[in-house]
This record gives sequence, structure tokens and C-alpha cells, in this order.
Amino acid sequence: MSGRRGDAVGGAHAPPTLPRSSNTIMQTEGIDIMQKPAPSDSPIHELIRNRWSPRAFANKPVAPDVLRSLFEAARWAPSSNNEQPWAFLVAPKDDKENFEKMLGILVEFNSGWAKNAPVLAIAVAELLFAKNNTPNRNAQYDTGAATAWLSVEATARGLFVHQMAGFDPEKARQAFGIPAGWDAIAALAIGYPGDPASLPQRLQDRELAPRTRKPLSEFVMSGHWGQPAPFVSN
Amino acid sequence: MSGRRGDAVGGAHAPPTLPRSSNTIMQTEGIDIMQKPAPSDSPIHELIRNRWSPRAFANKPVAPDVLRSLFEAARWAPSSNNEQPWAFLVAPKDDKENFEKMLGILVEFNSGWAKNAPVLAIAVAELLFAKNNTPNRNAQYDTGAATAWLSVEATARGLFVHQMAGFDPEKARQAFGIPAGWDAIAALAIGYPGDPASLPQRLQDRELAPRTRKPLSEFVMSGHWGQPAPFVSN
Repeated sequence: MSGRRGDAVGGAHAPPTLPRSSNTIMQTEGIDIMQKPAPSDSPIHELIRNRWSPRAFANKPVAPDVLRSLFEAARWAPSSNNEQPWAFLVAPKDDKENFEKMLGILVEFNSGWAKNAPVLAIAVAELLFAKNNTPNRNAQYDTGAATAWLSVEATARGLFVHQMAGFDPEKARQAFGIPAGWDAIAALAIGYPGDPASLPQRLQDRELAPRTRKPLSEFVMSGHWGQPAPFVSN
Repeated sequence: MSGRRGDAVGGAHAPPTLPRSSNTIMQTEGIDIMQKPAPSDSPIHELIRNRWSPRAFANKPVAPDVLRSLFEAARWAPSSNNEQPWAFLVAPKDDKENFEKMLGILVEFNSGWAKNAPVLAIAVAELLFAKNNTPNRNAQYDTGAATAWLSVEATARGLFVHQMAGFDPEKARQAFGIPAGWDAIAALAIGYPGDPASLPQRLQDRELAPRTRKPLSEFVMSGHWGQPAPFVSN
């Protein structure tokens, strides 16, 4: 958790963001799953509110046509010069060799729970423009957007995506033959939500912890750095 | 337009993505606006399908509570270590001085049309972890996600976001006092859609052009780089 950085923008007088919890356990297809809507300060669309990053996944495969729609959503993300500087390496669990290879690039903390997700993937960014090999300073940014749109489609279909920075990009390069000029940026666990009680205790605690974010006044500014935008303080 | 790169993944035998156009002109509040849904190959949620990056904006301000919800959506994006390494500088048009400053950092091609958007903004990424100043290799990726979630909320409210790489990051740093360790990554024009006929001819042509993307088989792989995932070729 990043915590508040009161000296960055809002100062000591910014209103505190109290951790509120709106976690709800509900039964779906005979198992307990958790809903963890964002305790937002302003109204947001339910697809945004309902997205979160669980570690408990149901033992239920993701159908090929659903996977296709997830990546189709990523496909239509916007990008600088329509470069589409993203690629995904994907391992559904029934492709055992590939799935094991994917697990092997994760740090141990992540492979411990991600092994129960039905699909693992890596998001890879092309750092140079294909047409002239000059640096594309938006490559990672645009790749992050592509995965976000994928997550929107996932949420709309009752799936969740838990992204991980905790993996070894060089192991990924070797394991999958990622060429020079492309960098693996994030690993993804994708699947249907599972019972939090299926997790070891310390992960259950994290699963149930309230969701927290910096207040808008810390990062939405107008006119000059550090000056909260008038519309966020109204 | 990036065009296809047949040698990258799909090879010469990948099915071509034919530019199809599903542009529709419709009247809203007395003006013609264009809908430009993605000609997707697989079903995607309407918020994903309907998002696009127009250059024609209506002369209609964005209310403060709507702006608040857009940035609230960005706030709840996921990030590595919940670092939330993003900030936004925002200039609604009625803040003339700030809006002019924002226009001044855009390349001329962009300021020519973006001056008609009711809100301009810059997305800024913090490149080092706040807690220990070590590089955050997910900073730009996570910032791209935050803007994507903002765009979801915008689309849900009938607004559009057109992002631009065409601006001067160093001018932005000087104009707004962006500190070392933070980099401006993308500029954003935000507003309600306008009449394409309000644009100069060469921009009208772009506004009406079909939307194109690489086929999934070029960027969704399994097992090894360059090997299309089985579920995309089914």
C-alpha cells in the first residue's frame, strides 16, 4: 500500500481518505465469492467500481471465445500513431507446459496463488516504432491502456484480472523468445472469482482488506504542479 | 496508421483486416455528431466498441461533477504496489490562462483542433517509487491504465477523450513546474462530440476514415514469440 503522501500535493489539510469497506460475500454457482466495490468519493460506472484484483480464483476454465473477446477489447485501445505497441503471451491452464513456463517466471509469492488462476499472460511492449526504430515514449503507457481495456471486457463478463509486477522480465524473455526491442511489463492472472477461504490466511487478510487510494486533491492539479484543480476541491 | 506488419507474427498467411466502416451520423441536441463503433471481429462491450478519438468537439463545457467522476475513475485504476504513479494537470476552457498554457505545449497540428475541446489535460507519470526512489518500471504502464479507466467513465457519460503524443514534454515541465522524477506522457482533449463538418477538410477525412487495427493473430501468442495463440486462430 502506498499510503498518503501528504507533502506531495494536498498538504496536511487535505481531507483524509478513510478506508471504508464495502466487501460483500455472495454465493455464485455454489461457492462463496467476494465483491469488493471501490468506495469511491464520486459516482463511477459499475464496471469501474466492480473491478478489483483478487487472488482467489474459481476452478473454472475460460472459454476460447471469451478469451478472444478479452483480447479483442485490448485490440481497440488507442495508441500513439495507432502503433499498437503491445503483444500478449497467453497460457491457459490446460496448456500445461506453457502454463508451467509462465508460472516459472513469477516471483514465488505470486506463483503461490496464481497457479490457481485458469489463465496466465504477460503484456509485452514494443519500445521502438516499427517503421523507423526510433524510441516510442508512449509504448508502455499504451500497453497499460490495452490491458485496462481488456480488464473492462473481463469485468463485464464476470471475470477478474490481477496484474503483477512481481515476475522476472529476463526469464520471460528467455522462456518465450521475446525479441530485443520488446519488454515484458506485467504478468496477468485472469479468471472467475473464487472463495477467499481457499487462500492461506495471510492472503485472506489481504483479500479482505479495504481498498485505498490517494484523494483526488493529491494528483489532479490545475495551473501549476501541486495546486489541486478547483473542481476536485469543490 | 501503423499498417500491418506481416513479418512480425501472423506471416503472409494471416487473414487481412479489411477496413470496414460503421460510421453513423446522428443528431444530438441539434448538431450532427458521428458514431464510429469499432468494427470488431469478436463481441466486445459497448463502452469499448463506442470509444474513439474524435477531433470535432461540441461547444459545451464539462460540468465540474462530471470532471470529478472522470478522475475518480482514473483513481481506482490498479497499479504496481498500489503506487498510483500518476498525476493529471487539467485545464477547462473557462480557465483561459491555464487553457492557453496547455495549448502552447501542443504541436501545432494538435493545437489547431484541440483549441475547440472544452477541457485539456496532461497525464504525468512518477518514474521512481515514492518510498525509496528506486525505478518503477510500471509507472508509465500504470499511468496509461489510469487514463484508460478515465476514458471508460467518459464514454459512459457520452464524452470522448482524444489522447495526443504530439506535445513537448519539456515545455510542459517548464510551463507547469513538473518536478524531476515525473514525466508528462500524454496530452488529453476531453469533451462532448461535435460536428465533423466543423473541421477543416483534411481533418474531416481523418475523422471519417475507417478504424483499423492489427489482427489478434499478430499480437496474441502462446508458448513462444510469433506463435499465434490457438484460441485466436479457431
